[in-house]
Amino acid sequence: MAKRFGVLEEEKVFKDPVHRYIHVRDELIWELIGTKEFQRLRRIRQLGTTYLTFHGAEHTRFNHSLGVYEIMRRMVETIEQDMAWDSEERLVCLAAALLHDIGHGPFSHSFEKVFHTDHEEWTKGIILGDTEVHNVLKVMGEEFPKKVADVIAKTYHNKLVVSLISSQIDADRMDYLQRDAFYTGVSYGHFDMERLLRVMRPTEDQAVFKHSGMHAVEDYIMSRYQMYWQVYFHPVTRSAEVILSRILHRAKDLYEQGYEFKDKPKHFYSLFSGKITLGDYLKLDESVILYYFQEWQEEEDPILQDLCRRFMDRKLFKYVECDPSEQMKIWPELIQLFNKIGLDHNYYLVIDSSSDLPYDFYRPGEEEERVPINLLKPNGDLRELSRESDVVEAISGKKRTDHKLYFPKDLLDNQQTFAEEKQRILKLLMAQEG
Amino acid sequence: MAKRFGVLEEEKVFKDPVHRYIHVRDELIWELIGTKEFQRLRRIRQLGTTYLTFHGAEHTRFNHSLGVYEIMRRMVETIEQDMAWDSEERLVCLAAALLHDIGHGPFSHSFEKVFHTDHEEWTKGIILGDTEVHNVLKVMGEEFPKKVADVIAKTYHNKLVVSLISSQIDADRMDYLQRDAFYTGVSYGHFDMERLLRVMRPTEDQAVFKHSGMHAVEDYIMSRYQMYWQVYFHPVTRSAEVILSRILHRAKDLYEQGYEFKDKPKHFYSLFSGKITLGDYLKLDESVILYYFQEWQEEEDPILQDLCRRFMDRKLFKYVECDPSEQMKIWPELIQLFNKIGLDHNYYLVIDSSSDLPYDFYRPGEEEERVPINLLKPNGDLRELSRESDVVEAISGKKRTDHKLYFPKDLLDNQQTFAEEKQRILKLLMAQEG
Amino acid sequence: MAKRFGVLEEEKVFKDPVHRYIHVRDELIWELIGTKEFQRLRRIRQLGTTYLTFHGAEHTRFNHSLGVYEIMRRMVETIEQDMAWDSEERLVCLAAALLHDIGHGPFSHSFEKVFHTDHEEWTKGIILGDTEVHNVLKVMGEEFPKKVADVIAKTYHNKLVVSLISSQIDADRMDYLQRDAFYTGVSYGHFDMERLLRVMRPTEDQAVFKHSGMHAVEDYIMSRYQMYWQVYFHPVTRSAEVILSRILHRAKDLYEQGYEFKDKPKHFYSLFSGKITLGDYLKLDESVILYYFQEWQEEEDPILQDLCRRFMDRKLFKYVECDPSEQMKIWPELIQLFNKIGLDHNYYLVIDSSSDLPYDFYRPGEEEERVPINLLKPNGDLRELSRESDVVEAISGKKRTDHKLYFPKDLLDNQQTFAEEKQRILKLLMAQEG
Amino acid sequence: MAKRFGVLEEEKVFKDPVHRYIHVRDELIWELIGTKEFQRLRRIRQLGTTYLTFHGAEHTRFNHSLGVYEIMRRMVETIEQDMAWDSEERLVCLAAALLHDIGHGPFSHSFEKVFHTDHEEWTKGIILGDTEVHNVLKVMGEEFPKKVADVIAKTYHNKLVVSLISSQIDADRMDYLQRDAFYTGVSYGHFDMERLLRVMRPTEDQAVFKHSGMHAVEDYIMSRYQMYWQVYFHPVTRSAEVILSRILHRAKDLYEQGYEFKDKPKHFYSLFSGKITLGDYLKLDESVILYYFQEWQEEEDPILQDLCRRFMDRKLFKYVECDPSEQMKIWPELIQLFNKIGLDHNYYLVIDSSSDLPYDFYRPGEEEERVPINLLKPNGDLRELSRESDVVEAISGKKRTDHKLYFPKDLLDNQQTFAEEKQRILKLLMAQEG
Repeated sequence: MAKRFGVLEEEKVFKDPVHRYIHVRDELIWELIGTKEFQRLRRIRQLGTTYLTFHGAEHTRFNHSLGVYEIMRRMVETIEQDMAWDSEERLVCLAAALLHDIGHGPFSHSFEKVFHTDHEEWTKGIILGDTEVHNVLKVMGEEFPKKVADVIAKTYHNKLVVSLISSQIDADRMDYLQRDAFYTGVSYGHFDMERLLRVMRPTEDQAVFKHSGMHAVEDYIMSRYQMYWQVYFHPVTRSAEVILSRILHRAKDLYEQGYEFKDKPKHFYSLFSGKITLGDYLKLDESVILYYFQEWQEEEDPILQDLCRRFMDRKLFKYVECDPSEQMKIWPELIQLFNKIGLDHNYYLVIDSSSDLPYDFYRPGEEEERVPINLLKPNGDLRELSRESDVVEAISGKKRTDHKLYFPKDLLDNQQTFAEEKQRILKLLMAQEG
Repeated sequence: MAKRFGVLEEEKVFKDPVHRYIHVRDELIWELIGTKEFQRLRRIRQLGTTYLTFHGAEHTRFNHSLGVYEIMRRMVETIEQDMAWDSEERLVCLAAALLHDIGHGPFSHSFEKVFHTDHEEWTKGIILGDTEVHNVLKVMGEEFPKKVADVIAKTYHNKLVVSLISSQIDADRMDYLQRDAFYTGVSYGHFDMERLLRVMRPTEDQAVFKHSGMHAVEDYIMSRYQMYWQVYFHPVTRSAEVILSRILHRAKDLYEQGYEFKDKPKHFYSLFSGKITLGDYLKLDESVILYYFQEWQEEEDPILQDLCRRFMDRKLFKYVECDPSEQMKIWPELIQLFNKIGLDHNYYLVIDSSSDLPYDFYRPGEEEERVPINLLKPNGDLRELSRESDVVEAISGKKRTDHKLYFPKDLLDNQQTFAEEKQRILKLLMAQEG
Repeated sequence: MAKRFGVLEEEKVFKDPVHRYIHVRDELIWELIGTKEFQRLRRIRQLGTTYLTFHGAEHTRFNHSLGVYEIMRRMVETIEQDMAWDSEERLVCLAAALLHDIGHGPFSHSFEKVFHTDHEEWTKGIILGDTEVHNVLKVMGEEFPKKVADVIAKTYHNKLVVSLISSQIDADRMDYLQRDAFYTGVSYGHFDMERLLRVMRPTEDQAVFKHSGMHAVEDYIMSRYQMYWQVYFHPVTRSAEVILSRILHRAKDLYEQGYEFKDKPKHFYSLFSGKITLGDYLKLDESVILYYFQEWQEEEDPILQDLCRRFMDRKLFKYVECDPSEQMKIWPELIQLFNKIGLDHNYYLVIDSSSDLPYDFYRPGEEEERVPINLLKPNGDLRELSRESDVVEAISGKKRTDHKLYFPKDLLDNQQTFAEEKQRILKLLMAQEG
Repeated sequence: MAKRFGVLEEEKVFKDPVHRYIHVRDELIWELIGTKEFQRLRRIRQLGTTYLTFHGAEHTRFNHSLGVYEIMRRMVETIEQDMAWDSEERLVCLAAALLHDIGHGPFSHSFEKVFHTDHEEWTKGIILGDTEVHNVLKVMGEEFPKKVADVIAKTYHNKLVVSLISSQIDADRMDYLQRDAFYTGVSYGHFDMERLLRVMRPTEDQAVFKHSGMHAVEDYIMSRYQMYWQVYFHPVTRSAEVILSRILHRAKDLYEQGYEFKDKPKHFYSLFSGKITLGDYLKLDESVILYYFQEWQEEEDPILQDLCRRFMDRKLFKYVECDPSEQMKIWPELIQLFNKIGLDHNYYLVIDSSSDLPYDFYRPGEEEERVPINLLKPNGDLRELSRESDVVEAISGKKRTDHKLYFPKDLLDNQQTFAEEKQRILKLLMAQEG
C-alpha cells in the first residue's frame, strides 16, 4: 500500500495579490494543486461575464480556490488553539476548501439553467470518480475522498467543519468578497478578516464570533450586501448573461431541429442530449466555448450569428426596469409588435430577475434554511447576530428582488421599415421605468 | 461627409483597479473601445504564460490598453499646461495610446518566433486596413488613421508625441509596470507616477523631467529592473514559453510532413504556409489556441500530445543554469544520449536566453538606439540621467543575459530502461549549475 | 490699497498620506497656511486622547485641516462644471475649509466642558480679530473675513457653500473619517470619495447626489457609524478623557481654594477666572498642557498628583457598563463606601455617556435640525436618502447611547485596610454589567 | 523571590497602521510597555523636525518601538524554526527590540550636538538604573537587565542576537523605513518584508539571506537609499534642525552670560551645566521643550526671541548648495557683511552637512566597521551582497555628502538700510549654487 502524504521538505508559497502569500506545507495539497482537474480551473473565470462590466475581473476559479484554501488554513490554525483535532480532520478541511469549486464549468450560471447540469453533482463526481484528484485523495485512505465530498455537500458528520466552508460567513465568501473587490477595483468588499479570524471560536456545530468582534462581522455583512448589488447583480453583467443563455438555447434548438452546423459542435452534443459523461464535462472550459462562439458568428442562422457577435464584440442588450405584474399587461402587445418587425421575442425580449437575501436567521421549516451567525458573550451565552446589531437587523430576512427587461435597442433604432411599431415598442418599454 | 466626433454628452468612466477610474470624454475614444478589434484584446492575456507562475496575472491586453490611454490622458493634460497644441494632436496621442497593442495576437512572443509574424505590422494593418477601428478613425479625417499608425511606428513628425508612447519612460511602461505588479502581487513595480507626471516638461523632441524629480525617475528605473528579473524573465514562465513554442514547431512540422490531424487545424493553415490575411489573424485569440491544444492532447503523435498535455496541465520542464560556451562542449554527448533513450532533443532539450538592458543612454550608430532620459535643471540645461544618478549609472548600458537549459526531468526519472544514460545526462546537466 | 492675492507662480504641493498630494495654487491659501495661528494647529492633536487607545492616532488638526481644504478644492472643481460662480465664492469656500477648525484648543472636548470655552466662538474671534489670519484674509477685501466666518458659523447666505463644509456629508467629515481610519489603522472609514465627488450635484441650498451613486453614500454612512463606535467612543479613550477633565476640575478647585502651586500655572489663570483673551487662548496648546501635567505630578495635593501621573503614564481607570436609572439606586451606597475608604468620589467615580445619531432626516422644530441627504433621480426629483436605502433607514433617527462608570480599580485592589468595603464596591459595580 | 513573568492569559493586540496588529503574549513585554519610561516615548517624535516638511510625520518613538518589537517577534519565530534557543534568549531579543530607543530624548539630534548627551548612554542608564523598566526586567533574573543592555550596546556574546537589532538589515531599520514612508506618504520605503523574513537564516554571528531572496534585499537597500535622501536629509527639515540647534546654543550662551530669563528655564539648568541626572533627563520631552520655546518668544533677547518664533511659526531659513572648499573663500567677506548689517553670523549663517553610506561591506580596521549582508547559496556558501548585486555594488562604499548654507533670506529682504551689502551677500550666496 502506498505511503500516505506527509509534510513537504520545504514549504511552497504562491504569491497572491489578495492574501500576499499562500502557504503550502502538506504534500496532499501540493499534489491536488498539480492535478489536471484543478489546473483546468485556470480556464474558467471566477465571475463569468462580469469582465464585460468590470474589465479588471478576469480572474479565474483557480485563483479563488487557492484563496479559500489559504483562509481555511488560517481558520484551522485558530481552531486548533481551542480544540484538539486529529490531523486527518485538518486535511479534510484543507482539501475541501481547495476543491469546493472543482465541479464548476464555463459560465456555470447560464449552462446550468439551459442544460440542467449541476456543478455540485460534478464536484462529487470529480472527487469520487476516476480522476487525478480522486487518485491523490485516495492516498490518504479509502474513506478520505468521501469525507471531502461530504464536507462540500454539507452532509459531513462534523457540522463545525461544514460551517467553515458553507455558512453565512465562511472561507469561501471571505475570499470571494475580497478577491472580487480587488480585481474589479470597487471600494466595497473590504473587512477586517484578520480580526474575524481572531475572534472566531469553534463550537460543536459551527464557528461563532466573540461579541467584542461584532462590528467586524457587521462590516463583513455590509460588504457582502454592497458587493451583491454593485458587482454581482450589475445590470450590464446580466445583459451579457441573457445573451449567453440565448446563444445556448438557440444552438440547442437548432441542433434539435436538425440544423447543419458548418463546424460540428461535438463538444456540445452530450449537453444537447442531456447525457454528458465526466470525461465530456472536463473538456468544457471557457476557451472551448469561446472557440464555438467565434465560429458561430459565421453560421447561416441569423439569430445564432447575431447573438454570438453581440457576446464576442460586447454589443449587449439595453434594459429597462420592470414590474413583473405590470409588465404582464403589455406582454401580448409587445410580442405581437416584435413579431411584426421580425424579431423573435424568444431571443430578443428577455426578463431577468436577481434577488438576494443578505443575511438570514434560522427559520425552521423554510425552504432554504440557513444557519444564523452567533455571537459569543463573555459569559458563554450565544446571541444571534441580528438581535444584537441594528444594521444587520435592518437587512436580515428581507429578500430584495430586481427585475429587468432586456432588448436590442440598436436593432430597433436601425430598422427603417416599421417606424410606427418601433415608436410603440419604445413607448411601452420606457413607460416601465416609471 | 460625416460629422467628426466631438465630446460625449456625459463622461464615461471605467472602474480600474490600478488607476481607480479611467475617464473617457471624447466620442472618438468611446467608439474605438467599442470596435470588435479592440474588444478582441479581452481574449489575449497581457503577460502570456506568466499566469502559470503568478496565478494572479490573468489580466488581458484590453485591461492594459485602457490603462495606457488613461496615463496618456493625464500626460496630455500636463503638457497642455506648457504648450499650445491643436486639438487634433491631443486625439492622435490618445488614440495611439489606446491602440498601441491592437496588433498583438495570442502568446505573441512564441508565435512571432515560430511563424515570423510581427505584431507591429499587424497594428499598422488594423489601423489602416478594412476594420471597424479604421472606420472609426477615418471619421476624424482621411489622414487621421495614418497619423495614429505613424506615432505607434515611431515615424511621426512630432517626436514629442512619439516619446510619450515609446521611450524609456512612457505611458506604456508606466502602465504595465504598475499593472503587472498589481496583478502578480509582487511588491516591486511601484513608483510615484503622480510625481513623474507633475515634473514632466515637454521639449521639442521628447518629454524631460525636472531635476528635482530625479529620485522619482530613479525609482521608476529600479522598478523596471526588478520587474524584468523577478517577473518577466521568471524561469518558470520561460519553461512554459519553451513548451509553447515547441508545440507550435511540432504542429508545423507535422503539417509539413503531411500528418493527418483528427480535427483539422484550419485556423493554423495560413500560419503554417506563411500567407496569413488580416481576417485570419483577427480570428486568432487565446481561446482558439487553447481549444486546439486541448484537442491535440488526443492526437496520435506522441510528441504533440505530450507537449500539449504539459502546457494544459502545467507539467513544465525543469531547468539548469547554463553557460553557452561551456555548454557547447557537452552538447554532442547530450544529443547522443537523448537519442539513445528516445527523446527527440529538438523538442526536449531547449536553451532559452533572456537579456535586458535596464537603461541606456544614447550611443549614436548603435543598432538599437534609445533616446536617453533627460533631466531639466533650474537654469534650463538638460542633463542625461545616468550622469546625475549613481544608481542608474550602475545599471545603465549593462546588458545582462541569463541562459537556461530546459528538459523534462520527469520523463528521465520515470524511464526504467536506460539507467546509465539517465545518470550520465543528469550528471552533465547538474554540472552546469556550477 | 494692497493688491489682492492672485495665483502662485508655481503650484505648491504637500505630500499627504491620505490624499497623496495637496495642491495649492492660490496665494491666499498659501499665505493662510503660513500664519502662526494655523501653524499652531500642529500642536493640537486631531483626536485628543485617542492616541492612548490607538497609538497610531498622533496626527494633528494641521494635518486634517489641509485635508479638508483639499477635498473642498476638488468639490469646487466639480461644482464649477455645473454652475457659474464668481471667483470670490470659490476662495471663500477654500478659506473656510482650511480654517474651519482654527479655533480649536488642546483637548477641546474636556476644556469646553470644564471651562465653558467654545471653539466656534474662538474660530470667529481668530478670523475677525487682530491676528495674522485676519490680516491675510483682509487682503481679499474688507468683507472677506466676515464671509469666511459666516460660512463656518452656518449663517452665510449661500446655503450650498455652507452645506459643503457642514452637513451630514461634507468635506470635513469626508476627510476625518478617512484620515482617522488611516492613522488608527482600523479597516473601517473607507468609502469611495472619488465616486461621491463625481455624483455630487449642486442645488440652490445644498449639494445632492445622483441616485446612481446611492451605494457610495450608504457606504459613507456606514463608515461613519463604524468609526463612531469603534474609534471615537472607544471606552479606553473615554477613560483618558475622564481623567483629563478631573485634572482640570481639580486644578480649578485648588486655585479657587487658594492652594499654592509650586510652579505658578499662569497659562491657566484666565481659564480659571473665565476671562480669557484671544492672546491667552492662542498660547494654549498641548505642549503647554502636558508641561503642566508633568509639573503637577510633583504637587503636594495627592489627587492632582495622582491624576496627572495616571494621564502621563497611562494608568487609566477601569470601567463597567451602567444603566443610569439602575445606577441611581446604588449611588448613595457607593459614595458612602468611597468616602469610607478615602477616595473622593468627585474624582474617582465618574459616569461618562456617549451618544450618536448616525444619520438623521429633517424634523422641523426639533432641537438639532439636520439637513437630510438628498438623492437626485434621473427625472430631476429629489428623494431623501433613508427613504431609498434600507440600511440607512435602519440606523437613521436612532440615537444610541452608551453609559459607562469609571473608577480606579488599582487603588481598590491595592488598598489593604478596608477589605469588606472593597468587596462590596466591586460587587455593586460588577452587578451593573448584567 | 518574585515569580518570573510568564505568558498572558489572553493575547493582547495593538492595532497598528503599518503591521496591522502587534501581538503581545509575554507578560514581560506587556509590563514593559506599561512603564512610565516607555510611555514617555509617546511625547518624543520619531522624526524630530521632519513634521515641518512632511506634515504627516507626527508619529512618535512609542509607535516605532512597538513596531520594532513586532518585527523582532516574527524574526524570532523564523529563527526558532531553524535552531534551538532557550526561552530566555527569545525574551532578551524581544525586550531589547522594544527598548532599543528608550534613551532618546526630545529632538535628540540637536540636543546631542549642543549638550553632548548620548542617547545610547541614557538607554543603558534607564535599563540598569532605578526605573520602572529596570524593576520589570529584574523580575526575569538579576542578570537579565544587563543582557538586554548588552544587546542594545552590541556587546552581547550572542552576535546573532545583536545583528537582529543592529546591522545593515535589522528589525529597527525594517520598521522605520516602512513606518516613516507610511506617515510621510512618500512612495519609497516599501519592500517585501514578509519575503525577507522568510528567506532569513540564522548563522552563528548574524542572520543571512537565502540567495533566492537577493532581489528583496536589493529592494530594501534601495528603499533605504531613497528614504535617506528624500526624507531624512530633506533640506527643509535640516533648516528646522539648524534653527533648533541655534536656539539651544543661544539659550546656553545667555545662561552662561548670566542673562536673566523671565521664566526660569529650570528644566535646562543641568543640561547647561553638563551635570544631568537620570531623573532630570526623564523629565525632558517635546512638550517641555516646546513650552519653553513658546515662552522664549517673549524674552527680551532679540536673537532667542526671533529664533523661537521661527521654529514655532515655521518661518525657516532659506538655503543654497555650497561647496565647502569654495565657500571658505567667501566666508571672511560674508561674515564681515553680516556683521555690518547687524546679523550675528553665529546664529544666522550656518552650514549643515549630511552624508550617508547606503551600504558598506566589511573593511577591517576602518573607523566605522559594518558587518556586511551575506547571501546564502544553495550549496551553503556565503557571498557578500555587493559582489552579487550590480545595483548594490553601485552604491556601496560610496559616501555621499551634501552641504548647504542656511540663512534668513526674509531678514535680508526686509531690511532697508544696507541695500548694497544685501545685494553683495545675495550675490555671493547665489554664486554658490553654480
